[in-house]
Amino acid sequence: MSTATDTIRNGVDTDKMFGTLDLIKEQPELAQFQFRATNRWIDGAHNRSTIQGFYAAGGEDTSRDREFRIDAGEPAILLGTDTGANPAEALLHALAACLTTTIVFVAAARKVELTSVESTLTGDMDVRGALGVDDEPRNGFERIGVSFRVTGEAPEAKLRDVVERAKARSAVYDMVTNGVPVDVDVRTD
Amino acid sequence: MSTATDTIRNGVDTDKMFGTLDLIKEQPELAQFQFRATNRWIDGAHNRSTIQGFYAAGGEDTSRDREFRIDAGEPAILLGTDTGANPAEALLHALAACLTTTIVFVAAARKVELTSVESTLTGDMDVRGALGVDDEPRNGFERIGVSFRVTGEAPEAKLRDVVERAKARSAVYDMVTNGVPVDVDVRTD
Repeated sequence: MSTATDTIRNGVDTDKMFGTLDLIKEQPELAQFQFRATNRWIDGAHNRSTIQGFYAAGGEDTSRDREFRIDAGEPAILLGTDTGANPAEALLHALAACLTTTIVFVAAARKVELTSVESTLTGDMDVRGALGVDDEPRNGFERIGVSFRVTGEAPEAKLRDVVERAKARSAVYDMVTNGVPVDVDVRTD
Repeated sequence: MSTATDTIRNGVDTDKMFGTLDLIKEQPELAQFQFRATNRWIDGAHNRSTIQGFYAAGGEDTSRDREFRIDAGEPAILLGTDTGANPAEALLHALAACLTTTIVFVAAARKVELTSVESTLTGDMDVRGALGVDDEPRNGFERIGVSFRVTGEAPEAKLRDVVERAKARSAVYDMVTNGVPVDVDVRTD
């Protein structure tokens, strides 16, 4: 006998999850989403993104009752006043968060109860590229290292399979490893 | 005659900026930086990154007296409880923030006084990829659109040149458009 409690695993409602997957299989046009951010320069290396509305499942999703704000900054050595994580660190956050959420969702789907998911990410950069001092080093990280520690009620092999599946399905891991076409347009009036 | 005030443009200390550039030209080994984030799963789609220490200019930089925290979440339609911007939105923030800071720094170097820098970013995603429903759509955004409005005390052509130079030097723009190698290792004990 199934009870409401049975459907929640790792904080994810698996009944709802499988229902969503079935619905999208039946109506693939519902799978078109658009996420958005607006950003405004404040001063120096300080700027702020505001995130709220998005398009999902055939219409504008207005379920969020508040906006999220993320401030960016730079440390003193990069001419800022530490008003927030810098943009490259924010990219590490995006990658860590996406892999982690995907691990949690994949584990829920596979009936794996997780105990903890922790990660440390490092990005190595030769700042001569971004500073325009030398054309040789690239502007961004040369490489990113991600160290996960994942524990749960499952054999090691199963936990490792969950992480592998998460790598194969994570939106941000795909974008960071493969790149995305970016179109930039500019108004000056 | 130069005064202290002259050196600050767009909130950036240009004397310090050019001093840093000269130093890195003379001692390129100081250009090796490492940025980091740690992330911890909290529940469901909620996880949190913590960002503080980094390596810069030949040693560990301990100038930050506090850590930055960024919470991630998902909206209800993606099985979360809106505990923060989702990871894909966080990537849009990272891109917006990096282009904006680079615009501000490039403008400062070129003696362009900016009045405002605003941007709206959109990312289009067919979520069948990330949800594992269909192998055809990629997991991440198919494309990202960035719309900038940049105003300042300079002719339009000069403002547009600043944005072009920022695209050519932004660390996150490079990473998002070109991709970065990512190594993932996993512990389960």
